Amino acid sequence: MKVSDLGEFGLIRLLADIVNEDKEGKDVPIDKLLIGIGDDTAAWKGDNDIQLATTDSLIQGVHFNLDTIGWEEIGYKAIAVNLSDIAAMGGIPQYCLVSLALPGATDVDNVVKLYHGMSSLAYQYGVIIAGGNVSSANELVISITVFGTLKGSVALTRSAAREGEKVAITGYTGLSAAGMRMLKEDLHFDEETTNLLRQAHCKPVPRIQEGQGLLHYGVKTAIDISDGLIADLAHICEASKVSALINENSVPVHPVLEKYFAESCYRLALTGGEDYELLFTASDDVMKRLVNKMSCPIYIIGEITGEIAGQVDVIDEEGKKLSFEQSGWKHF
Amino acid sequence: MKVSDLGEFGLIRLLADIVNEDKEGKDVPIDKLLIGIGDDTAAWKGDNDIQLATTDSLIQGVHFNLDTIGWEEIGYKAIAVNLSDIAAMGGIPQYCLVSLALPGATDVDNVVKLYHGMSSLAYQYGVIIAGGNVSSANELVISITVFGTLKGSVALTRSAAREGEKVAITGYTGLSAAGMRMLKEDLHFDEETTNLLRQAHCKPVPRIQEGQGLLHYGVKTAIDISDGLIADLAHICEASKVSALINENSVPVHPVLEKYFAESCYRLALTGGEDYELLFTASDDVMKRLVNKMSCPIYIIGEITGEIAGQVDVIDEEGKKLSFEQSGWKHF
Repeated sequence: MKVSDLGEFGLIRLLADIVNEDKEGKDVPIDKLLIGIGDDTAAWKGDNDIQLATTDSLIQGVHFNLDTIGWEEIGYKAIAVNLSDIAAMGGIPQYCLVSLALPGATDVDNVVKLYHGMSSLAYQYGVIIAGGNVSSANELVISITVFGTLKGSVALTRSAAREGEKVAITGYTGLSAAGMRMLKEDLHFDEETTNLLRQAHCKPVPRIQEGQGLLHYGVKTAIDISDGLIADLAHICEASKVSALINENSVPVHPVLEKYFAESCYRLALTGGEDYELLFTASDDVMKRLVNKMSCPIYIIGEITGEIAGQVDVIDEEGKKLSFEQSGWKHF
Repeated sequence: MKVSDLGEFGLIRLLADIVNEDKEGKDVPIDKLLIGIGDDTAAWKGDNDIQLATTDSLIQGVHFNLDTIGWEEIGYKAIAVNLSDIAAMGGIPQYCLVSLALPGATDVDNVVKLYHGMSSLAYQYGVIIAGGNVSSANELVISITVFGTLKGSVALTRSAAREGEKVAITGYTGLSAAGMRMLKEDLHFDEETTNLLRQAHCKPVPRIQEGQGLLHYGVKTAIDISDGLIADLAHICEASKVSALINENSVPVHPVLEKYFAESCYRLALTGGEDYELLFTASDDVMKRLVNKMSCPIYIIGEITGEIAGQVDVIDEEGKKLSFEQSGWKHF
């Protein structure tokens, strides 16, 4: 069987099984591991706080194309997607390692831009670039690992959603996917729209403070939206063994999407991906508290139901189920 | 200027400069960072112990070729080279993240072998594979990050070598490079030799306990030999602003190299690379103590001198300087 037959998430489950099986009978301090393979970050017990660690690679030709994204932007984005994973746990990012592989013919000025992009975002959140390694490769590969900590005894996870909870997001989705379309298809808009869409796709803002806020005000379940709203909600539903119902008309659609992408605006918002907003679930009481306390918008878009584990349905105003062809980024 | 003009180590210096410059005026807890860019691992102050983190990528076509190394072996090796970096600091490896990029057409059975190779070595040293990510790519890229800890207040570093100290290694070098030649050039030897050379190249043993032993018995300076004995001693000399003299006839040469690679056996031992033995410096007193206490061999091969920072000379029995064409693995 090929990896493409198994799919990304089938592969992850298989790898988790191997790692668990091989552990049997070995002298490994597994009791300190709080969260292993399958969430946004790994987590283990430190001396005082919980320690978090996450890694993500950006690969030229797969995750980005240097025709449409600049070197400074790709450096920024490589850090952002990892910080976003720490945000999804409610953590505080602290240190970062960069493993960089690139062709020898790469212009040094471009590598300088790449690193300025990385360090500008890292330092904005108090994160230290502490090391890494460089090697040659045919295509640019940027692998980032971010190490963080978490106050308290429990992290936000994918697996704590319960029937009856509301589902919410911290901001608009779909702008990044619209930005990618603009760049790939060379679409032209006014300057403000162009900047907004480019920023959304190339320089997404990791919701660090917001993640910590969610944890502080009693949220237990969160994920960052990288694969797409429906796909990431399905990850929560699978991990929590619940299902979810999204009300399409509760999903916020940015005016720019309504104006310039009218036909596909809901598809973009629901399946676009790379938004790096936080998607979370919580009781009505917690949601009410959040709406008054958080500095970011909180849009309640649906609820957790108890039917089929892993299933996410989207309904229109009349309660009719809608179907979306592509429910998120597929790696294989 | 191209990256290949600047070279791997010129590039690392440049990146370290950018990271340091961009930090100016930012609110970053830099006082907690003990070792940043430029050593085998990064190190920072934890609540109780020192925390270590290292990352290294193995890229198909650059670091390995699937015609000559098996999937299980490449998994093992990807973990081994990272554990070796922790060993070079005297640390205890604890957790590991795997960032895996591979073509969708990859046979799932091969990925299973890869992971068994990783987990078998990780668990042997009590290291937990705690997470990671998978994505598609044209070629196999395995990026590993290992987190560890260190008892005591100071790690083994590259920068503590002092004039008058002796230079030593924990075992034979050159076997891995000979193994690579055997595999690439399809050389044939008896079964025992073939296994020895294949093992040295494909499944190097990280010197974890030995690194901790060196630290325990008072060694301050060490590096693991990945680039080659001379090249890695030059890294110590650059970081410590000293020079070094190697006595060629003190360098141990394995009988297999003497027998089958007679003409190039010293070149292999001095410049081969990927040995993952520890190279270290210490005073006579510390060396004497080590020879009696350590379970691995300790070969004293030269001494630290005070002439030109970063320079390493090799002399023969008569004190004549020898020159070696290739002084280690070059990435660009």
